[in-house]
Amino acid sequence: MTAAPAPAAFVPFRRVALIGLGLIAGSMAHAMRQGGLAHHIAGHARSAETRAVAAEIGLVDSVHDSAAEAVAGADLVVLAVPVGAMGAVAAEIAPYLEPGAILTDVGSVKQAVIDAVAPHVPAGVHFVPGHPLAGTEHSGPRSGFAGLFRNRWWLLTPPPGGDAAAVERLSGLVRAMGANVDLMEPAHHDLVLAVTSHAPHLIAYTMVGVADHLRRVTESEVIRYSAAGFRDFTRIAASDPTMWRDVFLHNKDATLDILGRFAEELFVLQRAIRMGDGQQLHDYFTRTRAIRRGIIEAGQDTAQPDFGRTPAVPVPGAASAD
Amino acid sequence: MTAAPAPAAFVPFRRVALIGLGLIAGSMAHAMRQGGLAHHIAGHARSAETRAVAAEIGLVDSVHDSAAEAVAGADLVVLAVPVGAMGAVAAEIAPYLEPGAILTDVGSVKQAVIDAVAPHVPAGVHFVPGHPLAGTEHSGPRSGFAGLFRNRWWLLTPPPGGDAAAVERLSGLVRAMGANVDLMEPAHHDLVLAVTSHAPHLIAYTMVGVADHLRRVTESEVIRYSAAGFRDFTRIAASDPTMWRDVFLHNKDATLDILGRFAEELFVLQRAIRMGDGQQLHDYFTRTRAIRRGIIEAGQDTAQPDFGRTPAVPVPGAASAD
Repeated sequence: MTAAPAPAAFVPFRRVALIGLGLIAGSMAHAMRQGGLAHHIAGHARSAETRAVAAEIGLVDSVHDSAAEAVAGADLVVLAVPVGAMGAVAAEIAPYLEPGAILTDVGSVKQAVIDAVAPHVPAGVHFVPGHPLAGTEHSGPRSGFAGLFRNRWWLLTPPPGGDAAAVERLSGLVRAMGANVDLMEPAHHDLVLAVTSHAPHLIAYTMVGVADHLRRVTESEVIRYSAAGFRDFTRIAASDPTMWRDVFLHNKDATLDILGRFAEELFVLQRAIRMGDGQQLHDYFTRTRAIRRGIIEAGQDTAQPDFGRTPAVPVPGAASAD
Repeated sequence: MTAAPAPAAFVPFRRVALIGLGLIAGSMAHAMRQGGLAHHIAGHARSAETRAVAAEIGLVDSVHDSAAEAVAGADLVVLAVPVGAMGAVAAEIAPYLEPGAILTDVGSVKQAVIDAVAPHVPAGVHFVPGHPLAGTEHSGPRSGFAGLFRNRWWLLTPPPGGDAAAVERLSGLVRAMGANVDLMEPAHHDLVLAVTSHAPHLIAYTMVGVADHLRRVTESEVIRYSAAGFRDFTRIAASDPTMWRDVFLHNKDATLDILGRFAEELFVLQRAIRMGDGQQLHDYFTRTRAIRRGIIEAGQDTAQPDFGRTPAVPVPGAASAD
């Protein structure tokens, strides 16, 4: 189901608190500033170094040494920390959340985050879990830019019977940052993301690991000739290790299910190669080609060929990164 | 080892015969025309439809119904057909090859092509096998463009004791089309490519196949939310089915070796997820990140974040696609 369109004029939040100041929170800060979507943006990060960088580059209006301080008086609080840290942060800030405030998160796993966070949410605070399907392989307070969410999906998984107005208000912000909103059940979200994101990431990590072993055999050639397909894998496998460790540990069942299916399927194709069954390979590859066509038709990619290099240079604050 | 630089002025080939008129041959035609590297480009494709399209768009100077006709009088013949078809084409054209001509191919596998082609090559014809590490997920006579090879590697695997002048002459053409030349042993080429290209392609095909099964469970959501990582796999898995079937069947041993290592490695990570071993996952992901850095330092990619969409629109005949 798709949420209703936002009203034309978005009323800015009074104070947005970003807990965690990495790629997603930083990009939200840039996008909210560009659109005038918040009167004040407060930020906190656990690492003193991250806080220092955020203050130095003026990423947010105020940088706070504690999460509690950052959320005081906020009408929107965004948890933008690794999935495994969500529960502890929620427990820490809970006493300081203002009645009527919206609490959201940007974690790549939803059921585990809900299980960890929901018990801490005080009555009168509206918890609307969320997940922007956007990112790059970079991380840290300098990696954000305003266009990151443009034309991307931002999935919300609000609890049944929750406050509809809070969902609508958060959806309005998401749309104002350029993204499209969809609502989903948390468990279903976790399965869909296991297929579209979590399993592919683990597979990319694995292939890069294999190449690392082979590097000793082939010296620098694996790197030198990486343009032939491998390079796409290294890009995916360069993503933040802590974030991804937590994703796999907290979407364990769905990820293991998909990886199990993947291993079976891989063995079938491996066997076809070993047996010289060209027909089976050709049929398989013809089928996967059709899926690609579906993605282009769904507007999630263009039919332009990809040369492996990214010609566009993103400018923080630029209108669009796409 | 790296071949010596080409002389500044490249003396054009008199007549180049392209056997097969797909992405690689078509891009060679565009690049040779742009650079004035051949006085006449003759072309043949097995499919009447491909020949008709090539004639219609003027891809080459002359389109021939038989390969024999196309190669007559050529001082350079390029076999640009799927790896599994190389032997038959070589047998067909052998009687018509001109003494002193250079015969090359653009197959992604080298040892199997050499085994299939070399026995047919008449004395006095110089066979210099080659492999341009360039491509897109598109195929067919309309898919080529002049900039495809720019800044890409073009590997040559000449036989020991072969004609050095022929290698030098072909290297000159490759460089004049914008690519960099490297010389390599065929078996070593096949191992390096199994790691950097063949195994990653099979893995991408497999993951897309898994998603296809799941599509029935998740309706169109796998496609809708593909931007989260899966989309890179679908792009790779959209490549030409015939070409890739042949690659796997003809680089069987190296591909199966790498896939075996991959499966072992995947199981180790799968087990770490199942056991909740976050430290092992984190260590692994940190190591793969370093490999990415190596690739950026080697100049095979840029540090610019990739947003998954390709903003550049290639123009056939444009100076550079990068």
